[in-house]
Amino acid sequence: MSDPTTAPTTSVLARLDADATAARDRLFDWLRIPSVSAQPAHAGDCVRAAEWVRDQLAAIGFAAELRPTPGHPVVIAHHPGTGPAGAPRLLYYGHYDVQPAEPLDLWVSPPFAPVEVQGPHGPRVVARGAVDDKGQTLMWIEALRAWHAVAGGPPVPVTVVIEGEEETGSTNLDAFLAANRDALRADVAVISDTGMWDIETPAITTRLRGLVYAQIDLFAASRDLHSGLYGGSALNPINLLARILGDLHDAEGRVRLPGFYDGVRELTAEQRAAWDSLGFDEAAFLGEVGLSVPAGERGRSGPERLWARPTADVNGIWGGYTGEGSKTVIAAEAHAKVSFRLVPGQDPAKVEDAFRQFVNERLPADARVEFRMRGGSPGIEIPDDSPWVRAARAVLAEEYGRPAVLIGAGGSIPVVESLRRLLGLDSLLLGFGLADDGMHSPNEKFELRCFHGGARSHARLLGRLAGP
Amino acid sequence: MSDPTTAPTTSVLARLDADATAARDRLFDWLRIPSVSAQPAHAGDCVRAAEWVRDQLAAIGFAAELRPTPGHPVVIAHHPGTGPAGAPRLLYYGHYDVQPAEPLDLWVSPPFAPVEVQGPHGPRVVARGAVDDKGQTLMWIEALRAWHAVAGGPPVPVTVVIEGEEETGSTNLDAFLAANRDALRADVAVISDTGMWDIETPAITTRLRGLVYAQIDLFAASRDLHSGLYGGSALNPINLLARILGDLHDAEGRVRLPGFYDGVRELTAEQRAAWDSLGFDEAAFLGEVGLSVPAGERGRSGPERLWARPTADVNGIWGGYTGEGSKTVIAAEAHAKVSFRLVPGQDPAKVEDAFRQFVNERLPADARVEFRMRGGSPGIEIPDDSPWVRAARAVLAEEYGRPAVLIGAGGSIPVVESLRRLLGLDSLLLGFGLADDGMHSPNEKFELRCFHGGARSHARLLGRLAGP
Repeated sequence: MSDPTTAPTTSVLARLDADATAARDRLFDWLRIPSVSAQPAHAGDCVRAAEWVRDQLAAIGFAAELRPTPGHPVVIAHHPGTGPAGAPRLLYYGHYDVQPAEPLDLWVSPPFAPVEVQGPHGPRVVARGAVDDKGQTLMWIEALRAWHAVAGGPPVPVTVVIEGEEETGSTNLDAFLAANRDALRADVAVISDTGMWDIETPAITTRLRGLVYAQIDLFAASRDLHSGLYGGSALNPINLLARILGDLHDAEGRVRLPGFYDGVRELTAEQRAAWDSLGFDEAAFLGEVGLSVPAGERGRSGPERLWARPTADVNGIWGGYTGEGSKTVIAAEAHAKVSFRLVPGQDPAKVEDAFRQFVNERLPADARVEFRMRGGSPGIEIPDDSPWVRAARAVLAEEYGRPAVLIGAGGSIPVVESLRRLLGLDSLLLGFGLADDGMHSPNEKFELRCFHGGARSHARLLGRLAGP
Repeated sequence: MSDPTTAPTTSVLARLDADATAARDRLFDWLRIPSVSAQPAHAGDCVRAAEWVRDQLAAIGFAAELRPTPGHPVVIAHHPGTGPAGAPRLLYYGHYDVQPAEPLDLWVSPPFAPVEVQGPHGPRVVARGAVDDKGQTLMWIEALRAWHAVAGGPPVPVTVVIEGEEETGSTNLDAFLAANRDALRADVAVISDTGMWDIETPAITTRLRGLVYAQIDLFAASRDLHSGLYGGSALNPINLLARILGDLHDAEGRVRLPGFYDGVRELTAEQRAAWDSLGFDEAAFLGEVGLSVPAGERGRSGPERLWARPTADVNGIWGGYTGEGSKTVIAAEAHAKVSFRLVPGQDPAKVEDAFRQFVNERLPADARVEFRMRGGSPGIEIPDDSPWVRAARAVLAEEYGRPAVLIGAGGSIPVVESLRRLLGLDSLLLGFGLADDGMHSPNEKFELRCFHGGARSHARLLGRLAGP
């Protein structure tokens, strides 16, 4: 690999520094377009936001176009790169759509009139989409722009996909990916939609939990019964549902589905040491939402519980009389939505089967169950020693003067799962948001220091991946 | 006590037989008044139904009047009786209001146009209120009428209370009873709003279960949380609620509240034999509602489980996301409505306390609970050897040529509890309905054979209680 401190990377970084104010102005321009994908009234704004970023890419040498979907369009762009044959092809993914800005009265300034204000870390941009994901997407576009200015283009071939439905579940993305497999062929995906550890410490997210989501519907009598006339004789499906779900965890907080932990790997000593060194304050993390004590699996650290251990949570439950006052009814049915967060090594299909078995084993005579399983995605882990993670660690260490931490995320990022499943791509999750950025909340912001450091890091990464 | 087969009872029974067609016509008249207490449009009909029965009582020598309440009026009537001083004073209770008739399209004939149709037990009356409770109320009024015709009045002093809000929870009855304690002084209450064992077998209901009804509200985090970001660390109040409620019963179906069975008496050998001899077919009872196997306490007979054993049932449960599709939320709160059916010997206040204790003992750090207790009534048992039960058994045996069975009811009858609590009165529950009468359902009916046998039984009871 090239020495990243030599030209042209040095020149690219200098160019980014010189162009920082203009980059901020471009971010403002994009943020002024209220591309709220969830609100039909903003459909035209979504197209405008897509066109805006298409034009940015076209201006720096990309073959860029809008592709219609049944929802909002996808921006797709290609650049052959200026580097040697055999350089890896990168697929950059971002999204131009934003969350609804409501409740509007909680914003200090209008959500689509971006402003620069001073914060403890210097100037920040306040607007809907500042960090999620226009700011983080524009970081790597600015890196590509600087490479274009200095070297006529990126040193590696680049494909760009920027969708407009991430905030509404990426409804049409899978079909788009599947239909464009050839055009999207690449060696790795690069995504900036996650966070740093803190303002000083860069982070690469290398673990995501997967998900199995199930609705169970329990049925007993053919109609609701009077609890006086039938109580003590008739099966009560809510009692039964509580018994089944109450049995999901043992006294140590472990999930009791048969075989649930099959394939779950313990942390390596190295991973454990690295996560321990993060100094994650779980009490403070919980304190922000009014809790104080970890309620999950005993004998695990906070990061481990959140990133490397699977869970079972009832997400919703309903049955019987739920109105005001009292009604003495034995319901005919009872319902729950239950989800399992999975870690790498667990097979979603086996977890689904285990859940069915767990419930079925606990059904008495006269109870009938229906399951509705919704998708199912495995936990994902990018090996710490993959060339992509190694390259990213190197450039982040150069940019920030300290090692990047490798962290996990407790949730899934659906596009990462889709890219793996449909295109066979690993994702390099290189994020520059901060925990207090207010993603999805009023007064969303992005630190300009993060924006600029992110662009510089992406510029370095392009240089490093170019070879030799 | 008098010989019930001697005059005047013999003459009264003859009078009832001779007057049967006119009695049926009077029932038709009352049934034509659509006194649906739940429907404001029928408020005037409720007054008409009250006035109709007041006039019936006035016509047979009672001092009868309507008393206003904040809802529908109460009919109150008194007769000093014609018998010797010292005869017991009876308080007859009934209600003139009926359930709504909807769904109207399921009625074979209009609900307020009573018709006589032939059934397997002879002619029956089909109309809303036929059995519940106009028919059963008119039975004892017809008995009083016959006594009036033969002997100038009942042989014992009688007070009558007929309310118009039974089907809407007797909202104003307690206040009426409390405000009229002196006027309502009596030795026993007589109520016909229950059933026979079957068309051949008279029954006295001597046991009613009581009720403790609680809503529990569990609170954890200060807001709903993302199950990916927090799952495995944050307390999930629905998981907790399931664990608590799932723990309510042991493997034998016994309720696990501390001290729950304190004071619960085992059946006497005599009671057990009597109930065993009923030949109650629990499988058939459950089969009618799509069940097949008793789900309650193990090692008990059907009647015992339903009438003499306490229960715990979750009547409603809700929390988290209950809409279509999936939402990966850890809810901030979870709720349930839980009721306990009580049997004589259990103290409702102690059961409430035990439930609080049971829940509190299972609360981890960060969980908070609120309880909303709604009333609480004890189980009721009228001793088999009370003079009222003995008298009723005797007259039913005479009328039906076979012994009456003493049965229980799994639910409570609120007026029975009110009469005991506010007036200190035991209730003699002498009912002539059948299980297939369709109370509260379309095509409600009352067998004329039951109507007439009930009137004759009431006439005999009056004679028997008169002395000597």
